[in-house]
Amino acid sequence: MVKDYIVKHEWKIIENGFHPEYSEISESLFSVGNGKTGLRGNFEESYSGKTLQGSYNAGIYYPDKTKVGWWKNGYPEYFAKVLNACNWIGLQIKFNEEELDLNKTKILDFERVLDMQHGLLERSFKTELESGKKIQVKAERFTSMHDDETACLKYEIKSIDFKGTVSISSFLDFDVMNQDSNYDEKFWVGKSRLADNSYCFVHAETLKTKFNLGLGLQTTVKLNDKPQEVIKNTDRDKFASSNYAVSLNPGDTCIIHKYVSFGSSLYHKEEDINAICKEKTDQIQTAGYNALRNNHTSAWADIWRESDIKIDGDVSAQQGIRFNIFHLKQTYTGKDSRLNIGPKGFTGEKYGGSTYWDTEAYCLPFYQSTAAPQVGRQLLKYRYNQLDKAIENAEKLGFINGAALYPMVTMNGEECHNEWEITFEEIHRNGAIAYAIYDFIRYNNDHEYLYDGGLDVLIGIARFWAQRVNWSSDKKQYVILGVTGPNEYENNVNNNWYTNYIARWCLNYTRECLELARNENNDFNNELLNRLNLSLSEIEKWKDIAENIYLPYDNTLKIFLQQDGFLDKELLTAEDLDQADKPINQNWSWDRILRSVFIKQADVLQGMYFFEDDFTEAEHMNNFDFYEPRTVHESSLSPCVHAILACKLGKKEKAYEMYLRTARLDLEDYNNDTEDGLHITSMAGTWMSVIKGFGGMRIKDNQLHFHPSLPDQWEACHFKIMFRNSRLNVHMTKAGTTISKETGELDSVFINGREIDFS
Amino acid sequence: MVKDYIVKHEWKIIENGFHPEYSEISESLFSVGNGKTGLRGNFEESYSGKTLQGSYNAGIYYPDKTKVGWWKNGYPEYFAKVLNACNWIGLQIKFNEEELDLNKTKILDFERVLDMQHGLLERSFKTELESGKKIQVKAERFTSMHDDETACLKYEIKSIDFKGTVSISSFLDFDVMNQDSNYDEKFWVGKSRLADNSYCFVHAETLKTKFNLGLGLQTTVKLNDKPQEVIKNTDRDKFASSNYAVSLNPGDTCIIHKYVSFGSSLYHKEEDINAICKEKTDQIQTAGYNALRNNHTSAWADIWRESDIKIDGDVSAQQGIRFNIFHLKQTYTGKDSRLNIGPKGFTGEKYGGSTYWDTEAYCLPFYQSTAAPQVGRQLLKYRYNQLDKAIENAEKLGFINGAALYPMVTMNGEECHNEWEITFEEIHRNGAIAYAIYDFIRYNNDHEYLYDGGLDVLIGIARFWAQRVNWSSDKKQYVILGVTGPNEYENNVNNNWYTNYIARWCLNYTRECLELARNENNDFNNELLNRLNLSLSEIEKWKDIAENIYLPYDNTLKIFLQQDGFLDKELLTAEDLDQADKPINQNWSWDRILRSVFIKQADVLQGMYFFEDDFTEAEHMNNFDFYEPRTVHESSLSPCVHAILACKLGKKEKAYEMYLRTARLDLEDYNNDTEDGLHITSMAGTWMSVIKGFGGMRIKDNQLHFHPSLPDQWEACHFKIMFRNSRLNVHMTKAGTTISKETGELDSVFINGREIDFS
Repeated sequence: MVKDYIVKHEWKIIENGFHPEYSEISESLFSVGNGKTGLRGNFEESYSGKTLQGSYNAGIYYPDKTKVGWWKNGYPEYFAKVLNACNWIGLQIKFNEEELDLNKTKILDFERVLDMQHGLLERSFKTELESGKKIQVKAERFTSMHDDETACLKYEIKSIDFKGTVSISSFLDFDVMNQDSNYDEKFWVGKSRLADNSYCFVHAETLKTKFNLGLGLQTTVKLNDKPQEVIKNTDRDKFASSNYAVSLNPGDTCIIHKYVSFGSSLYHKEEDINAICKEKTDQIQTAGYNALRNNHTSAWADIWRESDIKIDGDVSAQQGIRFNIFHLKQTYTGKDSRLNIGPKGFTGEKYGGSTYWDTEAYCLPFYQSTAAPQVGRQLLKYRYNQLDKAIENAEKLGFINGAALYPMVTMNGEECHNEWEITFEEIHRNGAIAYAIYDFIRYNNDHEYLYDGGLDVLIGIARFWAQRVNWSSDKKQYVILGVTGPNEYENNVNNNWYTNYIARWCLNYTRECLELARNENNDFNNELLNRLNLSLSEIEKWKDIAENIYLPYDNTLKIFLQQDGFLDKELLTAEDLDQADKPINQNWSWDRILRSVFIKQADVLQGMYFFEDDFTEAEHMNNFDFYEPRTVHESSLSPCVHAILACKLGKKEKAYEMYLRTARLDLEDYNNDTEDGLHITSMAGTWMSVIKGFGGMRIKDNQLHFHPSLPDQWEACHFKIMFRNSRLNVHMTKAGTTISKETGELDSVFINGREIDFS
Repeated sequence: MVKDYIVKHEWKIIENGFHPEYSEISESLFSVGNGKTGLRGNFEESYSGKTLQGSYNAGIYYPDKTKVGWWKNGYPEYFAKVLNACNWIGLQIKFNEEELDLNKTKILDFERVLDMQHGLLERSFKTELESGKKIQVKAERFTSMHDDETACLKYEIKSIDFKGTVSISSFLDFDVMNQDSNYDEKFWVGKSRLADNSYCFVHAETLKTKFNLGLGLQTTVKLNDKPQEVIKNTDRDKFASSNYAVSLNPGDTCIIHKYVSFGSSLYHKEEDINAICKEKTDQIQTAGYNALRNNHTSAWADIWRESDIKIDGDVSAQQGIRFNIFHLKQTYTGKDSRLNIGPKGFTGEKYGGSTYWDTEAYCLPFYQSTAAPQVGRQLLKYRYNQLDKAIENAEKLGFINGAALYPMVTMNGEECHNEWEITFEEIHRNGAIAYAIYDFIRYNNDHEYLYDGGLDVLIGIARFWAQRVNWSSDKKQYVILGVTGPNEYENNVNNNWYTNYIARWCLNYTRECLELARNENNDFNNELLNRLNLSLSEIEKWKDIAENIYLPYDNTLKIFLQQDGFLDKELLTAEDLDQADKPINQNWSWDRILRSVFIKQADVLQGMYFFEDDFTEAEHMNNFDFYEPRTVHESSLSPCVHAILACKLGKKEKAYEMYLRTARLDLEDYNNDTEDGLHITSMAGTWMSVIKGFGGMRIKDNQLHFHPSLPDQWEACHFKIMFRNSRLNVHMTKAGTTISKETGELDSVFINGREIDFS
């Protein structure tokens, strides 16, 4: 059941009137972050209603022991999860003896606003206390995009008719746990804490992984502009607070500021964290809230300048796409190659915050088109840095000689999912990781990355495929047995077309890149071949495999077969499903899903999207017409690919239908799971639907092309694209498309094959 | 690494000298039981070395919450486990202040003997205490085969040079847990306990399942034949003891008897348990140890009279086969149709003590040939009683209209394993359950069971298959997609030949049985069709499916294909494996196993064994020669089937090799896992290797046939067979085979087609 309590607005997400029944959904929607830290839209003051209190720090995770029924060789030992960390927004507010808690008081009005343009979360409410007295609160917070080790909030209490003492406890609380803890354990151990007048500090360390994180907090409290003194400090294990008591009369306003700094062992020596937090916290308090806020909002202005999409005539679509861009930008900034994009970002715990193939297949195109090339390159570097672990991972499964199998789910390069049908079998991710290198080079016309790790990664991956195929004496071709393709509603299938195709492509592309290296950088090439003990005969073997790999095809239907035996299934379409059966993953047994023809997400079509120039128009059409009706899109990553292909094939209505499925997925809670967190990585898919779908953006022959196809439902669509350090403005209207260059050296682009000259 | 510390003996299992490094293996080997209760060969006195203290009561289980990484629809909620229950053998013995503990004292000599002929566990040792004083102990125990709610032990302490006080605590301890508890929980809640002079009683109840179990204990202690008085009673939650202090001088002998009774809510009202235990315990104490022991050993004499196998010229094989028969007989007696045969019996916790298809495929032939027909019939009745649950189980997976899918693993009829590739996919067990009905009827020439539940079961199973197939418009045949066959080294395959074949057979056999019912019992038949809403067109549909089901076959190799795509694999044989790779389930990743050609246990060959008359000699030979070299027999259930087929095909050396793999599996700990418990169900396979393999026993045309093939390594083999209430003695010697009838009305049998007339 779609929820429609969010007010539509071009730049804002607005909850008007409090919806306690959706409180956990709202907490996800109203999350803020800055690439290093982020938190759900929890209330500052106590709330005894439904809530998932969550504050997360990128790169700080815990290897929670896996739950498996029957362990088998090669199963991962742990399921990594990003850790719920220190609650820094917390304020305990008491009016005389009555604690402020919106679950208990009468709410007179309430508004919560996520101002996406400025990166601010605002909340205001008027409430009647149990005592019958009324007060008004305005709160605002941000995690600074300007200085990503800081965050601030402002909390303003105004008395309407309350007279008495307001007790305020401004605290840091590290005594938190993950909702998804497998064995109900807590993962943080307190190391030190301090509560000294208006300054608090708490420092904790994770079990096993030994990550250290300290937070400094300076609190200021003013009554009608008059600074108030701390009356008491409290500290206990993993907790510290500064406490105030303020005499409030009707009409009085009390303003609390919390200035917070983060010191993590990812960026600082453990022994320096204490001093760094103190210094940084003092410094931001001195600078003051407004200055920090200005720096933050101007950083957001820069972001929007490079990445905004404006849709005229469809506020709903406008809000949806900006919501997606906003969350993508606050999840990942590209500053640290150890970080990546968790499927839920900083908005929840599901999927453990780990890295999936989503990054390469969906997110890279977004980041490389909306930021400097360096940002996309960091995503490649992340995988290069984990190459040794990928080789180890392959070794655990019996592969040798430097073959690399990147994990399906990872934090530090180790596989950390806990289902064999995913970890062992969804090996297609190795292909997407190679494809991302190709995509980056193509987009940026910069193949230097090949010499900076790219070739090492490609060779590891090629070696994996070369060992993973086997010769079928029956088919007289190479086959790939026992895989799960992108369509996870199949397991352990033989010859998944997508997997076999991308394996072949990897082998060929690696050979091409080695050829390039030999031609232009022979010293490097020789060093590489020596270092990796790579012989020409091994490379020849790759050629042999690529030339003789089996790709299942049906001559009658003239389609690529998703896998061997696919046509043995009962060939229903999604229209044959009863409404009560949908989504099938909530209504059918896993058994029935596996046997059925229904496809969770683009599989053959994913391959045709990646390699579209390899196929004729008729091949595109045949396969789309066969697979699209059988795809139930129960992965949030699916509709975007179908939208892009539908645009290409001139199926405008289908494209718009697919776009709608993805753009407001979280705002309307289509999948009934937004309370777990937002679908961050699929937001990049939404962006692709617009840019590659309706915009028809492609790189061909080293040039940027557009094939616009504006939905009939829109007046116009304007979007920004960063391309090779130039910034372009694309304006699609019903009358036609124009493109202008804002900055940079780019000479031209093409619209429907017609060159637009910028010189 | 094979262990050979067990002394070879025709009737006894002997450990000579204590082997603490194998203590848990010995505990498994020296288990005793009586079908209702049983326990591992733990020591009576305290032992601080490696031990798995285990005492189990048939039918008392707990539904432990499953551990799965990512729950999907239709996954079972729990993994049932038979519960470790009250330790009734326990004696705490102190010599002055020093506790007797063989892990701490110096062992001067030690012998542990399982006397299989009489069903007695004996142990004697001489030890030097830390004080330097020596004592000697003889212990003997049994769980009565005559009265299966009682058990006794005798524990004799003789002082060699010790002088002082022996403190004896004779206790019942219910404060135990399962080693395999998923979340380290205890499953028993104490309800009452009593320690009143020499009588103790403890009553506890299981969480969730609310099984009640009480134990009564009468202890007697005599010093040189003079009864000793209790000096103290102790009781606490789930524990009660009678305590003695005896002054012992060199040469003195102190004899302790423990008389124990079991009162379970499976057989008694909860409120009666207390009184029943008291009465029964008093009664057996009054009868005295020797009388009870005589009743017990004479019950064992009866068992051996019906089931012994005597092998001349091979003590090792002799000991092995009797060990197997002994454990099968003390695991299941056929008295209670709620009970079944857990893969570990009463000897350990692995596999949770649940019922698998092992029962029908392997155990039924043993029990129906070594006991009255009623015993086998109870095993059928077990499944009939669970038919409603099997229908529910199928409904959970989306089947309708009375289709029954029996669980792969169960206690009470509900599925309770926790891997989808087993629960959803190993549907072939439904076939074995139908086959058992056929096998029982064929063996006993008694199809009355059809009218007593058999047809209901067959119809439920037929309905399952009819819904589980689907029409392949590609193959123009019915197919069965997404299964795991008996070979569990494959998952989610299409058209497993064995599964498709047995599905077809089930549909045909059910139709035949309905035809029989119509002809001879038309009233019953009409009532049945009405009650189950079974129409003639539904039965016609079964015919259509059976006639048009796809059975994969390779024309070139002239073999049945284990599944679609099998020949795409790299066609290695087990001989190609390095020694270091074996067993592959301990050395290869699951991924590699799945992709490989290697077969865990008979799959196509299992089908050819079940339905041998359907195939030509050449078909048998071709398939055996193709599959046998690729079978790694890493299931204990595999070699027996290969042994039987090898005998049939005249491959005597192969048959003997396969026999050796199964007969002493536990005695020599081939699989390095005997410490977890014995492989009870595969012991029935060993029995089949002898009787159906070397003996060549078959039912054909309603007659009993033998095709003897005595291994060259044996002088002779004599075995007992119960057949249709007659008892036969089969004597296979190098000179030939003779068969005599001991009891019963049977007219004749056939040896190699020649009739032996008993009339």
